[in-house]
Amino acid sequence: MSIFEQRESEIRAYCRVYPVVFDTAFNARQTDEQGKEYIDFFAGAGVLNFGHNNERMKQAVIDYLQRNGVTHSLDMHTSAKRRFMERFHHVILEPRNMPHKMQFMGPTGTNAVEAALKLARRVTGRHEIVAFQHGFHGMTLGALACTANQYFRGAAGVPLTHVSHTAFGAQGKAADQALQALEMLEDSYQDGSSGVTPPAAFLVEVVQAEGGVNIADKAWLQRLASLAKSVGALLIVDDIQAGMGRTGSFFSFDDYGIDPDIVCLAKGLGGMGTPIAMNLVKPELDKHWSPGEHTGTFRGQCLSFVAGCEALSYFEDSHLMEEVQQKGAIMSAALAPLADLAGVEVRGKGMLYGVDVGLGELAKTIVGRCFEAGLLVSACGSGGRVIKLIPPLTTPESDLQSGLAILVEVTQNVLREAV
Amino acid sequence: MSIFEQRESEIRAYCRVYPVVFDTAFNARQTDEQGKEYIDFFAGAGVLNFGHNNERMKQAVIDYLQRNGVTHSLDMHTSAKRRFMERFHHVILEPRNMPHKMQFMGPTGTNAVEAALKLARRVTGRHEIVAFQHGFHGMTLGALACTANQYFRGAAGVPLTHVSHTAFGAQGKAADQALQALEMLEDSYQDGSSGVTPPAAFLVEVVQAEGGVNIADKAWLQRLASLAKSVGALLIVDDIQAGMGRTGSFFSFDDYGIDPDIVCLAKGLGGMGTPIAMNLVKPELDKHWSPGEHTGTFRGQCLSFVAGCEALSYFEDSHLMEEVQQKGAIMSAALAPLADLAGVEVRGKGMLYGVDVGLGELAKTIVGRCFEAGLLVSACGSGGRVIKLIPPLTTPESDLQSGLAILVEVTQNVLREAV
Amino acid sequence: MSIFEQRESEIRAYCRVYPVVFDTAFNARQTDEQGKEYIDFFAGAGVLNFGHNNERMKQAVIDYLQRNGVTHSLDMHTSAKRRFMERFHHVILEPRNMPHKMQFMGPTGTNAVEAALKLARRVTGRHEIVAFQHGFHGMTLGALACTANQYFRGAAGVPLTHVSHTAFGAQGKAADQALQALEMLEDSYQDGSSGVTPPAAFLVEVVQAEGGVNIADKAWLQRLASLAKSVGALLIVDDIQAGMGRTGSFFSFDDYGIDPDIVCLAKGLGGMGTPIAMNLVKPELDKHWSPGEHTGTFRGQCLSFVAGCEALSYFEDSHLMEEVQQKGAIMSAALAPLADLAGVEVRGKGMLYGVDVGLGELAKTIVGRCFEAGLLVSACGSGGRVIKLIPPLTTPESDLQSGLAILVEVTQNVLREAV
Amino acid sequence: MSIFEQRESEIRAYCRVYPVVFDTAFNARQTDEQGKEYIDFFAGAGVLNFGHNNERMKQAVIDYLQRNGVTHSLDMHTSAKRRFMERFHHVILEPRNMPHKMQFMGPTGTNAVEAALKLARRVTGRHEIVAFQHGFHGMTLGALACTANQYFRGAAGVPLTHVSHTAFGAQGKAADQALQALEMLEDSYQDGSSGVTPPAAFLVEVVQAEGGVNIADKAWLQRLASLAKSVGALLIVDDIQAGMGRTGSFFSFDDYGIDPDIVCLAKGLGGMGTPIAMNLVKPELDKHWSPGEHTGTFRGQCLSFVAGCEALSYFEDSHLMEEVQQKGAIMSAALAPLADLAGVEVRGKGMLYGVDVGLGELAKTIVGRCFEAGLLVSACGSGGRVIKLIPPLTTPESDLQSGLAILVEVTQNVLREAV
Repeated sequence: MSIFEQRESEIRAYCRVYPVVFDTAFNARQTDEQGKEYIDFFAGAGVLNFGHNNERMKQAVIDYLQRNGVTHSLDMHTSAKRRFMERFHHVILEPRNMPHKMQFMGPTGTNAVEAALKLARRVTGRHEIVAFQHGFHGMTLGALACTANQYFRGAAGVPLTHVSHTAFGAQGKAADQALQALEMLEDSYQDGSSGVTPPAAFLVEVVQAEGGVNIADKAWLQRLASLAKSVGALLIVDDIQAGMGRTGSFFSFDDYGIDPDIVCLAKGLGGMGTPIAMNLVKPELDKHWSPGEHTGTFRGQCLSFVAGCEALSYFEDSHLMEEVQQKGAIMSAALAPLADLAGVEVRGKGMLYGVDVGLGELAKTIVGRCFEAGLLVSACGSGGRVIKLIPPLTTPESDLQSGLAILVEVTQNVLREAV
Repeated sequence: MSIFEQRESEIRAYCRVYPVVFDTAFNARQTDEQGKEYIDFFAGAGVLNFGHNNERMKQAVIDYLQRNGVTHSLDMHTSAKRRFMERFHHVILEPRNMPHKMQFMGPTGTNAVEAALKLARRVTGRHEIVAFQHGFHGMTLGALACTANQYFRGAAGVPLTHVSHTAFGAQGKAADQALQALEMLEDSYQDGSSGVTPPAAFLVEVVQAEGGVNIADKAWLQRLASLAKSVGALLIVDDIQAGMGRTGSFFSFDDYGIDPDIVCLAKGLGGMGTPIAMNLVKPELDKHWSPGEHTGTFRGQCLSFVAGCEALSYFEDSHLMEEVQQKGAIMSAALAPLADLAGVEVRGKGMLYGVDVGLGELAKTIVGRCFEAGLLVSACGSGGRVIKLIPPLTTPESDLQSGLAILVEVTQNVLREAV
Repeated sequence: MSIFEQRESEIRAYCRVYPVVFDTAFNARQTDEQGKEYIDFFAGAGVLNFGHNNERMKQAVIDYLQRNGVTHSLDMHTSAKRRFMERFHHVILEPRNMPHKMQFMGPTGTNAVEAALKLARRVTGRHEIVAFQHGFHGMTLGALACTANQYFRGAAGVPLTHVSHTAFGAQGKAADQALQALEMLEDSYQDGSSGVTPPAAFLVEVVQAEGGVNIADKAWLQRLASLAKSVGALLIVDDIQAGMGRTGSFFSFDDYGIDPDIVCLAKGLGGMGTPIAMNLVKPELDKHWSPGEHTGTFRGQCLSFVAGCEALSYFEDSHLMEEVQQKGAIMSAALAPLADLAGVEVRGKGMLYGVDVGLGELAKTIVGRCFEAGLLVSACGSGGRVIKLIPPLTTPESDLQSGLAILVEVTQNVLREAV
Repeated sequence: MSIFEQRESEIRAYCRVYPVVFDTAFNARQTDEQGKEYIDFFAGAGVLNFGHNNERMKQAVIDYLQRNGVTHSLDMHTSAKRRFMERFHHVILEPRNMPHKMQFMGPTGTNAVEAALKLARRVTGRHEIVAFQHGFHGMTLGALACTANQYFRGAAGVPLTHVSHTAFGAQGKAADQALQALEMLEDSYQDGSSGVTPPAAFLVEVVQAEGGVNIADKAWLQRLASLAKSVGALLIVDDIQAGMGRTGSFFSFDDYGIDPDIVCLAKGLGGMGTPIAMNLVKPELDKHWSPGEHTGTFRGQCLSFVAGCEALSYFEDSHLMEEVQQKGAIMSAALAPLADLAGVEVRGKGMLYGVDVGLGELAKTIVGRCFEAGLLVSACGSGGRVIKLIPPLTTPESDLQSGLAILVEVTQNVLREAV
């Protein structure tokens, strides 16, 4: 019996899907202890936008360690933090005229969401948050109340309160219905006898990744943003999985014409899997914080600043984002044959694609067969029925093509067998 | 205006106490950009038990990176994780006959506590948690409800429910009262008309570090453990700050004769500030988890496994723990003159000491003067009235003596001036 | 200064609208201490369906008192209770093949609703209740969470949780939207990632009286009933104001083709304003109660049984209900000129009518002028913009005509002046 | 099968203890349909302080009905209400210099408690209420959270939040421990790191009747009152069962030297079982209400005002209260032999006595045998182990003696058999 079977909690999950021991990894490939290589279309659940062991980041981290750079400092000032913040300021915020402040917290997305909720509630004096169906925002109690998936919610152990869920306006036919739901919501806010009052915030992902790769309809999202503004609620964008260049621009909302009050970032922000989380907060909201009110021992991880600083350099010119557009087009083209199959829907933007095969059982089989064929993908969405493709943005075109070929063939076979 | 003033959230805190920019650090010293060195009795809020840039860990991390070891893998199996788990099994669990499983989650203490609460509530089918006055357990909504400090609680924005707080049985005169409070609690559990029912769990720190360096009375803690057992509640020890050798043995409870159902670890577990969190969970409880019910992108950080594995090697023999005992004795002796002062109380165990000067304002002045004199300490406890000394366990004796000398002199001066 | 100004709470309300002291009352008339008579289209907020001091009831109560009948007995058996229950069984339940049990509780509608919620939650093991916009269900914390009006909700002092509100399917154009809202709800129940799970119960009024005289669309209500059934939720009809013959049959839902699991009754059930509340509960649900789990000192009021027994006798033949139909037609005809006015909507069923004048201020003026002209009416609905007409079912035709004439003239005048 | 078995809810309770059908009642006697008379030491759970069918009240009600007095009027002014309020003002409030306003609500004790909680929360802006172990305050969700008995709490169906329970300072040895609990509470309010903040209110019964006839220790209650004052919390006395002369003065707290902010009254206030509830509220608190914020259809019941007005006349001179003292002495003397028995404790004040036999099973047997012997008593307290004696204050001495003789003999026999 391995140490994993002997001593690891029954809660372990991905290792059940990929039952090998991984040893090394580079860019879009992971290698197991037997030397077998896998093309990685999973990328650490959307963390490794710049590939495993990105050379620039790796070297920067090693250099930093070798010169005894401060590794751990809570929210003390460090040179590494300054470099990161200055680069984020120059490369990301300034060009967008975003006045937001950077807030660091415990280095997990759920902590970022929790901090955002606290601030929204404080600023507005309201309790309720409106989140969206199929949304995913984390596992700690405040964020979990916003996460829609019942499997996760069922583990809370206490009632999840002060959050309601409304329809997400995904592109396509769902958008109309979701627009109507927004209108009903707006009516109810204006009616003192509706039992419903305006929330502290709307918490939304522009692309719901865990939720099944649902891409927000532009008109719907703009309507949501204007509703938030008109009722004095904050608009919080959880860009933890879809941000950092994934959809073809730094933020997933860059081409949506909205102006979020708070943006939650984590995952890819640390560059090479080095943990970090950060909220961007409008200054007039941020000033409602008192020092240290939302702390976290590992906030401001310097190794994450060092690697993350290299990640930001990818946005100093348009090269990588153009590449993402091109590779996205490759993905779209390669998946077209699947989109034609009955009961299959392909959705995507940038280098984030979902293949919705309608049934969790089918998706599970596909994930397993892909693994055997040397491709790592995972399932997401309701009942796990969507195959999510989220390869490193730096994936070599050959790996991208090979991976897509595996996926398409496996999917076709599995669906054919299922008939 | 610096980038920090321009762009960092108003929530920043420690940088206000230490208004410099740190650049490098080694073992018990941090150096600012001007080259000024500081003796570090803060150690990243108890993370850096083995010193800044611990040589063994640093080298192990560099080696790991250079061979392209997997850095980020969620809860997939990796060679690095196996080594860490095997070492934890052999060095820590086996010698203590602890059958516990290891559960990894988002790499912050608060996530560990949240996971523990979920499991306790599921296993017992109960909602309530009993936590303790002056306890600190984190910032996310579930853990925050357990944290006692009103400053942090006040940021929640929603009512903190399903947790009650009772007196902590600190050594000394408080222990009797706390014992009595436990007895009243026990009576109330047995009385169907008390309005009080047994909780899902008791969540306790054996040494309350943030709470003011309060060390649990042995009789009280054993009474608590037996009460938990008798009413079917779990005993959860939050050993996030006081564990990992801090008090002179690996766990803070090693000499207390208790048998916790769940132990929460984080902070020092990652060795050199590399984030990680882990719960030790008795197998009969752990089996109530279903796969992936409490996830977290950065769970199972491989760099943390690599550095943490080196940290565990310090517990393969008794050398470091003997050193902690000796250095603890040095601290105790050096602080004795303060303990004699009116209104001052010195409390401590191993290399975790608190100097309670009675008033937050005094403590703040002391912290500031120490900083000027080249010593990093911070304040904790009610109103911030306790100076906390939590130097790396590997602090050279000369640094330890120098730091203590600064603290004692500054404290004596400040208290003299305050009269 | 009167004793009222000197000693009555600022919370007093109706006495501000009708600033006189009433002394006597008979059938559809109240007389103040100056001897001025008022036609009563308010009927004690829908309690006095059989008129003030109904002769039969009054005599029955006096006889009962004179023979020293038990007046107060909690839930002990009494002869008076037996008579009431037997009559309810024979006259109401048996003809409808309703197998429901009768449960008595504290004699207020809100207590009935609280009891119904408790049972629904116990039976289903679920927390959530779905109530409806503009619904009114009472003031105690459990029922208040179901009441939609923000004015009442704002007095709770704690968050109102475990209830959500959805659109009410009033006859007319709102019905379509409400049907759609039901469909979205149904979809969300079937989707494990919607953040929404089926409720313990749907709590609905067939006619929302306080909510503005909104009459449920038949297709919508049947859809709701079938949704409840299909998701294992209870259907609770709050018939407290609209039941007891008000809409032309004993229950407001008699012609809707639904089969409620629980029906809440109060108000008119006690005949002449003698307090009582009762739930009708399907036996298979009722058996989940243990003895005395929901008590109430004044449950089972014998004077209410005595007067209420007389009230039930009105349903032994079709006479009264035919009268209600005829008088309802008179009301409808008399109000027709108002319905033709711009911005005015007239809604009603049986002898419950609402004149929606669009603005609370207008309605308030109308209520005040009617009072001066000798007619008691009150305002309801969002912002108090609907004049509610709820005269005793026994109102003499001449009083009905006179009252309607006053209302129509006053309303026409006020609206004309407002232009 | 009787209509009760056929159609009454399984929740019925007292009728299971007294399995007969009562028909008439007068003063301290109830008569069943077979003509068997029972001495009534239960008095409708403390409602019938002035006896069944009290002649003065009965006649007043009949007269009122015969002259067509307004019976039901919500909170409109009526002559009957004025008479009641004026008498309450002159007889009760003025002599005590109590400036309180009278607030009427739905006519059940639980509604009174709910209204008091709302106001306390509004005035203080706090959520938490401190209630007491063994306290009983009603069944609706807000009041139920304050009720301590787990049997009732278990029916809530949702978590009962925002209330905590602390030890009640009953006279005797429990008082010391309860005093200490108060001191711990006070300490925790002053400590910003205790996790505990001052409540909106303390809700206390001076004599816990349902809780087992526990009489508050004077020093403890005064300490509680001063703690409330010092932390800005309201002191709410629930005098629903113990007020109205039961303990030898109008209020149960008349000889305690405290000054409650709100007093909740119901039960006996309506004189002959006619439902009513009323809060006495200090004017500076009362002004925080807006009109109609806490309503209730049956508030301000005129028949209750009429009978209740007669009840108040009993307090115009000292005659009845002297009688209560004398009869209380008779009760005490008669029960003395029981107090001497091992395992039995007799507690009481005025004409409210409890015989604590230690075990619910014993008490149940005693209640049943008393019933057979023609005496109605009921059990209360934890597990139902206390026989409660709460006869009408107007009980003729002969009935009192007879009833006591039955109780003493039955109890002695049952306890003897149990050995």
